[in-house]
Amino acid sequence: MKQTEVSRATMGRIPLYIKYLKSVCHTNENISATVIAKHLGLGEVQVRKDLSSVSGAGRPKTGYNTKKLIKTLEEFIHSGENGNVVLVGAGKLGSALLDYRGFEDYGLKITAAFDVKFDAAEKSRLGKPILPMEELEEFCENNNVRIGIITVPAEHAQTACDRLVKCGVRAIWCFAPCTLSIPSDVTVRYENMALSLAYLNKQIDFK
Amino acid sequence: MKQTEVSRATMGRIPLYIKYLKSVCHTNENISATVIAKHLGLGEVQVRKDLSSVSGAGRPKTGYNTKKLIKTLEEFIHSGENGNVVLVGAGKLGSALLDYRGFEDYGLKITAAFDVKFDAAEKSRLGKPILPMEELEEFCENNNVRIGIITVPAEHAQTACDRLVKCGVRAIWCFAPCTLSIPSDVTVRYENMALSLAYLNKQIDFK
Repeated sequence: MKQTEVSRATMGRIPLYIKYLKSVCHTNENISATVIAKHLGLGEVQVRKDLSSVSGAGRPKTGYNTKKLIKTLEEFIHSGENGNVVLVGAGKLGSALLDYRGFEDYGLKITAAFDVKFDAAEKSRLGKPILPMEELEEFCENNNVRIGIITVPAEHAQTACDRLVKCGVRAIWCFAPCTLSIPSDVTVRYENMALSLAYLNKQIDFK
Repeated sequence: MKQTEVSRATMGRIPLYIKYLKSVCHTNENISATVIAKHLGLGEVQVRKDLSSVSGAGRPKTGYNTKKLIKTLEEFIHSGENGNVVLVGAGKLGSALLDYRGFEDYGLKITAAFDVKFDAAEKSRLGKPILPMEELEEFCENNNVRIGIITVPAEHAQTACDRLVKCGVRAIWCFAPCTLSIPSDVTVRYENMALSLAYLNKQIDFK
């Protein structure tokens, strides 16, 4: 598996490629970027670029071995054993994310949520554990968790972040409207829902 | 109010400016970008750029009139009467967004949610109406709705989108993992939660 940087847009198309390739892999031993592009309504250059960034170039005339290409794309998109995620803040948004099934397509799994207001273990609607904050450290250690999602109010986000970082989490997905202080080797992505909607609203005026 | 295009990053800082300015407006009749930058831990150039894009430049030596600046920033960030938003798909994520309080800071309000599985009106935890899909058109017309949020499964997203566009909605915020066909005068923003998390996960490897 090549580990060059792949764009978010390319990653978004990989599930489409996998789905299409799986639908034809029993009849097409090999497949070209041209055929894939045509069937998915994408540009041929884009498909070539996407596939080569993950899997290398296809062979001239033959293209890609369909089953090998599926395997390469799946290995790239799935996270293997390292897909364990925890969530801090089991409010409305946290609960929605906890039971959201789409993450599994990428081999990711929110294994548990943690919340200050739970002093006994509870479960989400889909049966995922909601645990008291005291158990965060032990859980992360035992489950080799590498991503933490923060869905607590802004004023508690830094504390949640600090504890997650101490637990060895390598990336933070923060839904609280704030800016976190984090070590440089930890990746952070902010998701400010209110700002996203406000910005979309402003774009109407600019259009 | 100037209507130049303002970046998402600038919009994200405006609530910070407003909060700080309100805390000092009784003691400081005027305020300079330098003072604001210092107190918020931001770069002076950035503050000048942010404020000038919304409010014009401050006066040499005096800076900005604090109360006027608050008013300008609030007018910019708030949507006035046009902040009505509807949501289609009252599942977990839809319900979480419906009762999310952060939108009000930007003058935006999800006024109702619509869902196929409701045949009688229900209410969210915070008392917002969840209505049957049949009432979408009438509701949008009566409430001058200009933004629609789509939180239905991907296979129903285009239908929801078409109905919202017909209702006169000017922007769509789509949480379904799909690509929508929309008229060129309608703005769309996609929020693919699974892809966001997967991309964050990949960034750990790239780091």
